[in-house]
Amino acid sequence: MAQEKKRNVIVGQSGGPTAAINSSLAGVYHAAKNLGYQHVYGMLHGIQGMLEKRFIDLADHLKTGLDLELLKRTPSAYLGSCRYKLPEINDDKDLYEKLFAILDELEIDVFIYIGGNDSMDTIKKLADYGIITGSKIRFVGSPKTIDNDLAYTDHTPGFGSAAKYIATSVKEVIRDGWSLELSKGQVVIIEIMGRDAGWLTGSAALAKGEDCDGADAIYLPELPFDVNAFVNKCKELLRKKNCVVMCVSEGIHTEDGTYISEMGNSNGFTDAFGHKQLTGTARYLSEIVARECGCKTRAVEFSTLQRAASHCASRTDIEEAFECGAASVKAADEGDSGMMPVMVRTSDDPYKITTDIKDVHKIANAVKLVPREWVNEDGTYVTEEFLRYVRPLIQGDVDPITVDGIPRHLYVPGYHELL
Amino acid sequence: MAQEKKRNVIVGQSGGPTAAINSSLAGVYHAAKNLGYQHVYGMLHGIQGMLEKRFIDLADHLKTGLDLELLKRTPSAYLGSCRYKLPEINDDKDLYEKLFAILDELEIDVFIYIGGNDSMDTIKKLADYGIITGSKIRFVGSPKTIDNDLAYTDHTPGFGSAAKYIATSVKEVIRDGWSLELSKGQVVIIEIMGRDAGWLTGSAALAKGEDCDGADAIYLPELPFDVNAFVNKCKELLRKKNCVVMCVSEGIHTEDGTYISEMGNSNGFTDAFGHKQLTGTARYLSEIVARECGCKTRAVEFSTLQRAASHCASRTDIEEAFECGAASVKAADEGDSGMMPVMVRTSDDPYKITTDIKDVHKIANAVKLVPREWVNEDGTYVTEEFLRYVRPLIQGDVDPITVDGIPRHLYVPGYHELL
Repeated sequence: MAQEKKRNVIVGQSGGPTAAINSSLAGVYHAAKNLGYQHVYGMLHGIQGMLEKRFIDLADHLKTGLDLELLKRTPSAYLGSCRYKLPEINDDKDLYEKLFAILDELEIDVFIYIGGNDSMDTIKKLADYGIITGSKIRFVGSPKTIDNDLAYTDHTPGFGSAAKYIATSVKEVIRDGWSLELSKGQVVIIEIMGRDAGWLTGSAALAKGEDCDGADAIYLPELPFDVNAFVNKCKELLRKKNCVVMCVSEGIHTEDGTYISEMGNSNGFTDAFGHKQLTGTARYLSEIVARECGCKTRAVEFSTLQRAASHCASRTDIEEAFECGAASVKAADEGDSGMMPVMVRTSDDPYKITTDIKDVHKIANAVKLVPREWVNEDGTYVTEEFLRYVRPLIQGDVDPITVDGIPRHLYVPGYHELL
Repeated sequence: MAQEKKRNVIVGQSGGPTAAINSSLAGVYHAAKNLGYQHVYGMLHGIQGMLEKRFIDLADHLKTGLDLELLKRTPSAYLGSCRYKLPEINDDKDLYEKLFAILDELEIDVFIYIGGNDSMDTIKKLADYGIITGSKIRFVGSPKTIDNDLAYTDHTPGFGSAAKYIATSVKEVIRDGWSLELSKGQVVIIEIMGRDAGWLTGSAALAKGEDCDGADAIYLPELPFDVNAFVNKCKELLRKKNCVVMCVSEGIHTEDGTYISEMGNSNGFTDAFGHKQLTGTARYLSEIVARECGCKTRAVEFSTLQRAASHCASRTDIEEAFECGAASVKAADEGDSGMMPVMVRTSDDPYKITTDIKDVHKIANAVKLVPREWVNEDGTYVTEEFLRYVRPLIQGDVDPITVDGIPRHLYVPGYHELL
């Protein structure tokens, strides 16, 4: 029986960028071309840009093997990202009709969305609408988030590179702090991303080794945070050493749910959108500790560096991100819709991963937190089990392609004109 | 004529740590051994530790070529640093007597101090006291500072690696910011070290290239800072693009000398030493911009990462640091005292450097700022001349020696017991 001619693929990126999200994009492109699809379109700024018919033909920008290698080494979403939540189908059918009309116009067979929980919600709704309307387009997600909080997958692309950057930087900050503190105490407080899940904050523990004592305490957002206990811990540590390094999640909060970052908001600037400008968690705690312990303090925020530091990416992560991107196209090619490839760990040592495919209806509504038993009894450090889980994910380097002393990224010519 | 038998060398590190200061230490050790000195002692925490007779024999810790390679890749002062200012000789002769007695007891011929302006003041005083008392010990400095503000040298070891880290990270932050800003504006303000000299802040301009538009404006501490003009610049840029990235020195201040970092100190915590805990410059400006421009803002501080990021060091810098360390020992060996090796640039392209030796009496009291003509007319960016000067200094990488996914550093066993 003659097979129908394959038409086009469209791919988008959504949510917070990572150092590996473009490697997944490279994997999508590579697999789509290998499987014989005609055009591979990239939507600019995800579904939000798509609604305005903003897209590029990736073949215009990925002309050589070197372009693909550069793309894998380029941080942040190459196509631009968005934080756009699709309405429920019944609340705005017009929007879905408009979107599907655009996809039909582009002769799309396969729609890939690279993202986290919210992006899988988008895939879920589009796949559902496709079933309702009898569309033949297959909608498949590709996992991505530095937070590592997607369920049903061993871990997520993007997490390993962020964890590697955090471990490397925490180790360097510890060394730096040590050298200058001869006679007086100092507390350095490092704030790490992950509002609900402590995977990244826990990864600070990777800094510890034969050549580094590691951070003195690590506080995840999964457990209630007690400011007094924190101050007392600092006091206790200052009696033993001159430079104390504490790592905290940006999402730590008290038993009653108050974020520590909200507590410091004394001057209360509010922007035009009504967003309160929050004092950083580390900054607030450093003020409290300075006052209560009478010592010098320093607040360090890794900020967006931890999700954008391609120069310090994990090879394992970049390769797995590529594989996940490719697997999402293969799944769609085989007829799957409303699904997402996941990684299954079959062995820790040697580290072995296989891929499987899961229903996004389950994934979109679940969050994977650090299990309580992977945190020590008093909630101030992660356990050896946690480290055994994370360590394989930061292995290997991806040498940057360096031009004039700094890493080269893939540039989309005329990008600003497109906006 | 029979030459006197060479005795011992002692070396210390002082002031703010860098990613290259240990490469200078490696250079000192290597040259001292090659020149036939017996012991090479390392003072722990500089002159301050020396006064308490705290030192190690470096041969106990640098046993193999691999140890020396690890030392070159270890950030922060391996021996520990201090910020100790020697009194004037006439104000406390007892202290000098005590110090020289310790040096004589250790049979020191050569005293090397790796540091910046303040450390060269130490070398100056010790050399002067040596002359007064007829001591045969030679005191020589070895240049070090990320700030690049030492006079009489083309640049300083430590600066190139910090500049490379800053350029790399600014580029990554720009990419990150771009990807998520579809419809609403955002201003990202990056704060960079260098309280008086703008060399590091200006190095943010290295991020600009064919694949990156670069930062939108750069403010050095050499020029007076006008908060209103800054806000207006942000407003103007927001009309043209969605994500604006501004780089500011931590030391920017108004015409009357008020630091911007002091302005945000509304809650006024003061620690036990009477140090005001200052709100960061970027943080204060981000609050002002959020209020005045009605947009989302983000303050990014590179903090101690910019001086400790060995994983992103410049090979040019690490090699020159080693050479400077070695040159300081050679100078002392040839009879110089009260001197410091400097780098002289003989060509920009190809980049060529030779070393010379200068009197610390001149160096200790001078500061090298960014010349006015290397900043554009309205004081919002550096010129092509600035870039031509800085670019050679960030070339080349030093591959980290990686163990379990993160860079390995040289560990001094029993360090904590020594403290």
